[in-house]
Amino acid sequence: MLDALFRPKSVAVIGASNRELTIGYRIVQNLVDSGYKGPIFTVNPKAPFVKNFVAYKDIREVPLDVDLAHIIVKNTRVSAEIEKCGQKGVKVVIVNTAGFREIGADGIKLEEEMLAIAKKYGIRVFGPNCQGVMNSDPEVRAYCNFTFTKMVPGTISVMAQSGGVGEVINNRLYELGLGFRMYASYGNQSDINATEILEYWGNDPGTKVILLHIETLSDAAGFAKVAAEITKQKPILAMKTGRTKLGAKAVSSHTGGMMGVDTSTSLLLEKCGILTFDDEEELCQAARALSALPVAAGNRLAIITNTGGPGIIVTDEIIERGCEMAELSFDSQEILRENLYAEASIANPVDVLATATPEHYQLAAETLMKDPNVDIVFVNFITPFFVDTEGVARGLVEVAKDASKPMIVVAMTEKEGWATTLKIFADAGIPTFDMPEVGGRVAASLARYAQLKQRHDSTPVSYADVDPSVASRLIDKTRSAGRQFMSQSDAFSLLDAYGLPVIANSEVSDMAGALAAAAEIGYPVTLKVESEDVVHKSDAGGVLLNLETDKAVEKAFADLNRTFPSSQVFIQKYLNPGVEVMLGAHRENTELGHVLAFGLGGIFVEVLKDVVFKLNPLSKEDIAAMVRGIKGYPILAGIRGQEGVDLEKIEEFIGRLSILLHNHPEIEEMDLNPIFVYPRGQEPGLVDVRIKLS
Amino acid sequence: MLDALFRPKSVAVIGASNRELTIGYRIVQNLVDSGYKGPIFTVNPKAPFVKNFVAYKDIREVPLDVDLAHIIVKNTRVSAEIEKCGQKGVKVVIVNTAGFREIGADGIKLEEEMLAIAKKYGIRVFGPNCQGVMNSDPEVRAYCNFTFTKMVPGTISVMAQSGGVGEVINNRLYELGLGFRMYASYGNQSDINATEILEYWGNDPGTKVILLHIETLSDAAGFAKVAAEITKQKPILAMKTGRTKLGAKAVSSHTGGMMGVDTSTSLLLEKCGILTFDDEEELCQAARALSALPVAAGNRLAIITNTGGPGIIVTDEIIERGCEMAELSFDSQEILRENLYAEASIANPVDVLATATPEHYQLAAETLMKDPNVDIVFVNFITPFFVDTEGVARGLVEVAKDASKPMIVVAMTEKEGWATTLKIFADAGIPTFDMPEVGGRVAASLARYAQLKQRHDSTPVSYADVDPSVASRLIDKTRSAGRQFMSQSDAFSLLDAYGLPVIANSEVSDMAGALAAAAEIGYPVTLKVESEDVVHKSDAGGVLLNLETDKAVEKAFADLNRTFPSSQVFIQKYLNPGVEVMLGAHRENTELGHVLAFGLGGIFVEVLKDVVFKLNPLSKEDIAAMVRGIKGYPILAGIRGQEGVDLEKIEEFIGRLSILLHNHPEIEEMDLNPIFVYPRGQEPGLVDVRIKLS
Repeated sequence: MLDALFRPKSVAVIGASNRELTIGYRIVQNLVDSGYKGPIFTVNPKAPFVKNFVAYKDIREVPLDVDLAHIIVKNTRVSAEIEKCGQKGVKVVIVNTAGFREIGADGIKLEEEMLAIAKKYGIRVFGPNCQGVMNSDPEVRAYCNFTFTKMVPGTISVMAQSGGVGEVINNRLYELGLGFRMYASYGNQSDINATEILEYWGNDPGTKVILLHIETLSDAAGFAKVAAEITKQKPILAMKTGRTKLGAKAVSSHTGGMMGVDTSTSLLLEKCGILTFDDEEELCQAARALSALPVAAGNRLAIITNTGGPGIIVTDEIIERGCEMAELSFDSQEILRENLYAEASIANPVDVLATATPEHYQLAAETLMKDPNVDIVFVNFITPFFVDTEGVARGLVEVAKDASKPMIVVAMTEKEGWATTLKIFADAGIPTFDMPEVGGRVAASLARYAQLKQRHDSTPVSYADVDPSVASRLIDKTRSAGRQFMSQSDAFSLLDAYGLPVIANSEVSDMAGALAAAAEIGYPVTLKVESEDVVHKSDAGGVLLNLETDKAVEKAFADLNRTFPSSQVFIQKYLNPGVEVMLGAHRENTELGHVLAFGLGGIFVEVLKDVVFKLNPLSKEDIAAMVRGIKGYPILAGIRGQEGVDLEKIEEFIGRLSILLHNHPEIEEMDLNPIFVYPRGQEPGLVDVRIKLS
Repeated sequence: MLDALFRPKSVAVIGASNRELTIGYRIVQNLVDSGYKGPIFTVNPKAPFVKNFVAYKDIREVPLDVDLAHIIVKNTRVSAEIEKCGQKGVKVVIVNTAGFREIGADGIKLEEEMLAIAKKYGIRVFGPNCQGVMNSDPEVRAYCNFTFTKMVPGTISVMAQSGGVGEVINNRLYELGLGFRMYASYGNQSDINATEILEYWGNDPGTKVILLHIETLSDAAGFAKVAAEITKQKPILAMKTGRTKLGAKAVSSHTGGMMGVDTSTSLLLEKCGILTFDDEEELCQAARALSALPVAAGNRLAIITNTGGPGIIVTDEIIERGCEMAELSFDSQEILRENLYAEASIANPVDVLATATPEHYQLAAETLMKDPNVDIVFVNFITPFFVDTEGVARGLVEVAKDASKPMIVVAMTEKEGWATTLKIFADAGIPTFDMPEVGGRVAASLARYAQLKQRHDSTPVSYADVDPSVASRLIDKTRSAGRQFMSQSDAFSLLDAYGLPVIANSEVSDMAGALAAAAEIGYPVTLKVESEDVVHKSDAGGVLLNLETDKAVEKAFADLNRTFPSSQVFIQKYLNPGVEVMLGAHRENTELGHVLAFGLGGIFVEVLKDVVFKLNPLSKEDIAAMVRGIKGYPILAGIRGQEGVDLEKIEEFIGRLSILLHNHPEIEEMDLNPIFVYPRGQEPGLVDVRIKLS
């Protein structure tokens, strides 16, 4: 429980200062300014008082109990202060001081020392190297932080890995009149981490929406578990930065981490039902809508507009972001036709015309709210001088207040002149957006959230006929031979144990064996060198395809033997080329499942990077989305009237691979490339597999 | 000259009204509120006065000269009022009234009638179905418009096809403290059109930046000519809406036009050196920077930040938008290392740390301004409580004020508390942006503008050895035969006349001819049916490839003869397959050059839509950008260490085709698909060509 952190009954500031341009001054000032509801104690060995407060030389001199203590002294002196806090019975410390793990070996030592002392006394540690926390609950009003955003109670809680990003978000929420519920920027997470805070907010009835800024996740598995539960109840929105290579490099130099562009974190967020954003403004505006409006049931929008051009802007925005323009029902169209101006456009966007009356708006909004083809009603409203705009606002509020569908209102206006009109919306709790693009993006976020809600309960695929024991034995065999790469024949056997289609094959060491194997497998066959050292076998001349006779096999074996002396030779049935696809898997984060990659083979992967990634385990829906998510999907589905390939077989292949990887985390990397896929009814043909163990 | 429109010495309002919720009231009120510098006359046959003005029954009763008259009467009465204006000697009318061309046949008739009368008297007409114009020049202050944006003099002029979009932009410029110079929303453009206004603003010294909102262009060629001249002097920024199919459909229902997604307008804007945007906010922010800052010389950014997270956001934004992170010079790095905090990061982004002093900022900014590897200096500045932020602002202003490079400042702050800091920037004319994403996008716009400036003077390619007369003769021949599609052999001859590589070919009508032609061309050959009726020849069995013997030719000829009786047969040298590319051309707008399309052949075009479009004529730079612009470019350049294809030959091919199309606007569509391209030194091999004449 983090009550001592977020709802402290008393706060001490160790390192409080009278010098204005210091953190030790600012935290005291912020606690006072925010109207903190408990006693504040300042600790400073030299000053008799700090601001209006008696300053104690030592935390142990404080005459009352202390729930929370800020520590702002030099990094080398933090441990000593924690020792004193322990003796005093402090429950939680916020170590704002930097100079710990983030600076390298010396800092790691200091951090471990500090944690050991805290542990001895049962003190929880927030930080070090952090901003702090805030809680705007009117019963608490704890501004345990040195930032500048004014505290206004709200329903959105914000957690930021970067304090700078957190502050930009908080300040924007303030400007939008939303305030915040709680805030945390946790620094090094030496003890209290993002997962624990997330869980606390999940249980906080005052938090309606959670906003996250994430650079890297430290406790990915724990985080995922908690987040997936919370997103069933309330929306979590996340901004993940460092999405370009150079951005990721900047993250790594900033956090001292060593991450590349980190695919698994983004995939994980998606998997937990978290709505992700690339833009702080969009994040804040979506949070605004999600904290105020009903949840949408789908992605079909109906637009009411009194101005053509901005209606087109909305249409462009929402279509590009995966929404649909609702087909209005026949009944809706009839009602609109009978009641709007004759020149009004009753298709979607419904153009009520610039001179539309309050009655026109209200009727149009009511009609679209009732239309079963509409999930989101979008009102694009410019405020002409010659219209009773306050009447329009009252009419729309009337419709929105009891509606089960969200209404997005874009109010394009001069904010001082039309303050009363805007206030009618604000008083009714209906957010208004000032530009059509902003409203369009918010609508698209509501639609994405609808989709995430629907996907939420999908379960991982499973197959009864898989044999983990065979697979484990093969993995152990490779490991005990001191190898990291599995042999071709073991790799094929491993796949076979999971019911994946494996073609006839054999591993041989001499010419006679090769000929016998070829006879048993049946011509044509392919011969490959079996060697851990040869990575690109084809390029090195280690693969000889489509051998049709004994004589061809003899020559091929001799050639391989000459080029790669004393290597084993792998022999397999030659497959007729089909459409090439590839599957890959790797573990980016050992706490999480493998990242799976699916794409068309060859240049589609190498040049066009036409690949879809998902984080294992996978549901049926995930697999379908993977196969359909590549740009080259039409090639699989069939183009120019030709028959496509057997999609179900591809999906089963991916499903079985997903189980295999889930059961065997020892697999570090796996490449199945190419896999030939064929028309309906034919099993996929796996040509080559590479399995690397951890 | 449009002085009577934009700098009217007097304004009359025909249809002025005392009813507040009318356009006739609002225009009078807006003229008064804006402080218009000339006399205002109201015309109303029933009221003795309108607001504070004597109302005349008839414009002819007005005792002084009238430069400009608004007409706001019913559509059927507009012509009569223009007749009276003519008798009075009015120079220009703004017809706000709707119900003309946009409503169909009846409206077209009214519009033509009105124009004829205006022409008789030499009156220029603005509109109908329009908002009007504004000029904030302190000597004029003409608010001839019924919208709500307050008039504040600025240097940005705004022209909007959609009055709604124009108003959103104007209002946003007002909120940003920029105001506007002039404004026009022109409605049906029955007489005065966008081109003429653009030219007027090009010559207006008070206009530093021009913003356009465009749905469709009516006078594309004239517009292009004027715009291309202006962009050499001052930036034009454009927002083109209707970019998705449904958005375009909404444009067409809104304007009564019939356009699909309109590629040529977007290409034209690019060609004229116009910077295009998809987002009004981004458009306004870019205009703000371009009106205030020096022009950037390139796209290399150096970032100074005092907060890691927002620095990463900027990096992501600019990299995704085609900028580069500058490699700081050795000297710069040394200076930064010596003068900043020891823990500061001196790579790019330069992290000066949260506690950086004003001297740190000033020194870092100065150093980056002087670095020859840096084109744009980007300052990402969060305002901590414990920093002298006013000192930082003064230091940065010191550097920016005489710099020849732009400095983008993102000031992340609470705007009331840090008003003085923000004012230091504002007073020095340095725009500040409140979010890192916004600043990043503005920086990317400056870099794009730098690129457009550099490309501006590229000239169309030309070749001396082309023969338009042969080509014209072949086109005439096809036309006089009453055909729209050229025969294969004529099409090949046409290409040959422009020096395009054409393989040996012949058209034959009997077996003997086929055999003789094959012998002359040399085996292997390909036979194709020659028929205008068969569109997909291959699919219909009309193409027989790689025939190696007389016997094969005999059989092929017989087969074709059976399937397509009495059709001619086209015979050509069979080409060994190379890398497939395709070229296409079509005329979307008869006022403009052809739209050329280049891509890899087959599924790359059909499935992946990996195509680059350009508007003819093309410069060398255009062609290079086309070839390098497709995602599949690495396939042409050579992948996996293999030799690529001869890029120069592809570029020459495109260049010659560009000239051909430029010389022969009668060509409506042209498809060259596939073209085989080969390694260095080999001519491209054109397999199939289809030419459709207009």
